[in-house]
Amino acid sequence: MREEEIRSAIAKAVEQVRAEKPLVPSITNTVTQDFVANAQLAVGGAAAMLYLADECESVAKVAPAFYINMGTAMPFYEETLPQAARALFANKKPWVLDPVGIGLSELRTKILTQLKIYNPAIVRGNASEIIALAKLWQLINEAGGNVHGVESTEKVSAAKSAALAIAKFTGGAVAVSGEEDLVTDGENVINCAGGSELFTKITGSGCALGGVMAVYAAVTTPFIAALTATTMFNLAGSKAAAQSEAPASFKVEFLDNLYELTAEEVADNFRVVGSFENMFNFGME
Amino acid sequence: MREEEIRSAIAKAVEQVRAEKPLVPSITNTVTQDFVANAQLAVGGAAAMLYLADECESVAKVAPAFYINMGTAMPFYEETLPQAARALFANKKPWVLDPVGIGLSELRTKILTQLKIYNPAIVRGNASEIIALAKLWQLINEAGGNVHGVESTEKVSAAKSAALAIAKFTGGAVAVSGEEDLVTDGENVINCAGGSELFTKITGSGCALGGVMAVYAAVTTPFIAALTATTMFNLAGSKAAAQSEAPASFKVEFLDNLYELTAEEVADNFRVVGSFENMFNFGME
Amino acid sequence: MREEEIRSAIAKAVEQVRAEKPLVPSITNTVTQDFVANAQLAVGGAAAMLYLADECESVAKVAPAFYINMGTAMPFYEETLPQAARALFANKKPWVLDPVGIGLSELRTKILTQLKIYNPAIVRGNASEIIALAKLWQLINEAGGNVHGVESTEKVSAAKSAALAIAKFTGGAVAVSGEEDLVTDGENVINCAGGSELFTKITGSGCALGGVMAVYAAVTTPFIAALTATTMFNLAGSKAAAQSEAPASFKVEFLDNLYELTAEEVADNFRVVGSFENMFNFGME
Repeated sequence: MREEEIRSAIAKAVEQVRAEKPLVPSITNTVTQDFVANAQLAVGGAAAMLYLADECESVAKVAPAFYINMGTAMPFYEETLPQAARALFANKKPWVLDPVGIGLSELRTKILTQLKIYNPAIVRGNASEIIALAKLWQLINEAGGNVHGVESTEKVSAAKSAALAIAKFTGGAVAVSGEEDLVTDGENVINCAGGSELFTKITGSGCALGGVMAVYAAVTTPFIAALTATTMFNLAGSKAAAQSEAPASFKVEFLDNLYELTAEEVADNFRVVGSFENMFNFGME
Repeated sequence: MREEEIRSAIAKAVEQVRAEKPLVPSITNTVTQDFVANAQLAVGGAAAMLYLADECESVAKVAPAFYINMGTAMPFYEETLPQAARALFANKKPWVLDPVGIGLSELRTKILTQLKIYNPAIVRGNASEIIALAKLWQLINEAGGNVHGVESTEKVSAAKSAALAIAKFTGGAVAVSGEEDLVTDGENVINCAGGSELFTKITGSGCALGGVMAVYAAVTTPFIAALTATTMFNLAGSKAAAQSEAPASFKVEFLDNLYELTAEEVADNFRVVGSFENMFNFGME
Repeated sequence: MREEEIRSAIAKAVEQVRAEKPLVPSITNTVTQDFVANAQLAVGGAAAMLYLADECESVAKVAPAFYINMGTAMPFYEETLPQAARALFANKKPWVLDPVGIGLSELRTKILTQLKIYNPAIVRGNASEIIALAKLWQLINEAGGNVHGVESTEKVSAAKSAALAIAKFTGGAVAVSGEEDLVTDGENVINCAGGSELFTKITGSGCALGGVMAVYAAVTTPFIAALTATTMFNLAGSKAAAQSEAPASFKVEFLDNLYELTAEEVADNFRVVGSFENMFNFGME
């Protein structure tokens, strides 16, 4: 895929979601459900949050995509998450996994281990989470060079091998969020620029990003969906930061901008770090 | 009831809630609890959200009204919802039912079937939900002409027979939300105008409307409570849409307007579709 | 401690949180998690909400402080809350208790009774809740003069004996929120002024205050932590009320102000009711 093809695919995804209004259900943490749902609505999708295994199985048959965020695990997640993922896989539906809180409890480890075989179309997390997931799924060498544990301060670049390994395994895409975002399909690696430091001063921007990736996954490939959502967030975030200097008004401006962005604007402002051509075919070192 | 009586009853309800500050508890979905509570507070009420059956039974004795929104069903709702409704019925307390997600799982079907005998004072939903509930409660003919399944795209007018049937059965009111809202007490049918398309771009405006109806149900009849809340939302929504063109700032403006509306303003701006006189005594065709 | 020492300790706490960014987990109600987390982030901390007992035990070992808000009790809280408190106590970690909803059910009574021995560093509540907790923990005479039941309309001053008794028992601090706030370490009693009536028109300002107290408890004594958070809220609330007259925009302005307050500004504007000197050594009447 070349730069122009990607820009055109992004523009098409933005427009298609606005036209089709895909309802993309989520299992997601209780802290940021409002933000996730409003971000999904702002880009043109529709939202529904679920807790029960049988409801997830039921919507897996009809929903065009799904978002699973480990977030605030409840006792019944032991049943809900694997059953939801299995149903999505069985119905060939793209789903996005956000392994937030990985390693926090045996339950999370057990659930995330089970999810491996259900091929998430996109895995999104910060650098530490992506590295931890690649290790849990035994896709990178436990003693490997660039894995230094699961600090939340891990840099995005440190997660590149882990991201590539996960994407190669799933056949989908992986997005690592940070000051610069990394998006890979297992072969190409794109580092996206933009956004705002204020994203770290509001709760849930990562969750909302994962939810919006799932909305785009309803209409395009995992790689383009991850890039489109990332670009939307970076652009709307930059604009919001120019309009507001404090977090609560920033969040309002961000959602408003997310709603108002045009497909052309998003495609034109898809910003990569360094030369675009160099982003591609990095492969696994 | 004639037009002037209704306007006067609405104005009285607005003022009485501001004076009495009724605390109206809810069982409601986790996605929009913040919005529901803030809307209830903005009109002058007070809010409390509950999950446990015994806590609902306990507050059913003292609360002046209650809101039950099926929203994000959790495993323990099987116990909580029917016990709450039974206690509210036993204590003769008006309660509002929002059957969101009807048909999504066997649990929801089982719970909603059980709730039938506990007479919700107000049932609020979109057209599809109201039609589905009327069918589930066997109040309309399964094979009836204007029932075409549970599409969320169903028009409000298509739910008129279902709304009338439910209201006749409960002896309370039914409100169908959509571009135009329909409110009926089983005999009179009023179509309310106003609001904004932006309501569909934020999550929870329907839930918040149900919660505010429950607040008004603490001080007036179900029919007037449903009309008052609907009018408040339509007016505050119209004003907010004149102040903001994007969803997040719209939501802020909407809640601010909800807080600032005067009783006189609400009564004066109670807008119906078509001639007011024609709204009444439609009855069941 | 004298006035200048307190002002200086408050300024230091404000700066230290901004420098250290302590991640302070919470078990807190589902209604206001977004507000709690965003308030914690706005003052410079970081947030994580939990439901599972083993996850709480796990983070109790590494988190510098913790927030427990009874809020929306779920069935599994019977296990989660006591185990979290026991782990925090065992690991000598300061934790803040908000006994909201005390007395609403046998489960809450049972849990709150169990929590007594785990010494919360700070107890925060409204007057009625603090009185009810002091009674439940048998720290004040059930038939005592200034205890008139658990009306939420109880004045802050009516809870002074209860607050002192709890603080003397825990060896920590107690904060009673109301028009004027009372903060005590069991010996000194400080009444803080400021804030805005609009706090009563948004949901969760009390919860957010408790969560922010826990953030400051990560870097300073319980008494200074309670005073710092109270002063931050009073000052940011006063400023927000000068910028906005309605609740939703007030909330946005409040969080923005919370983020923008300087340590100097907070220390300078630490306002007490009456003469500062008279605040101290009230002791137990």
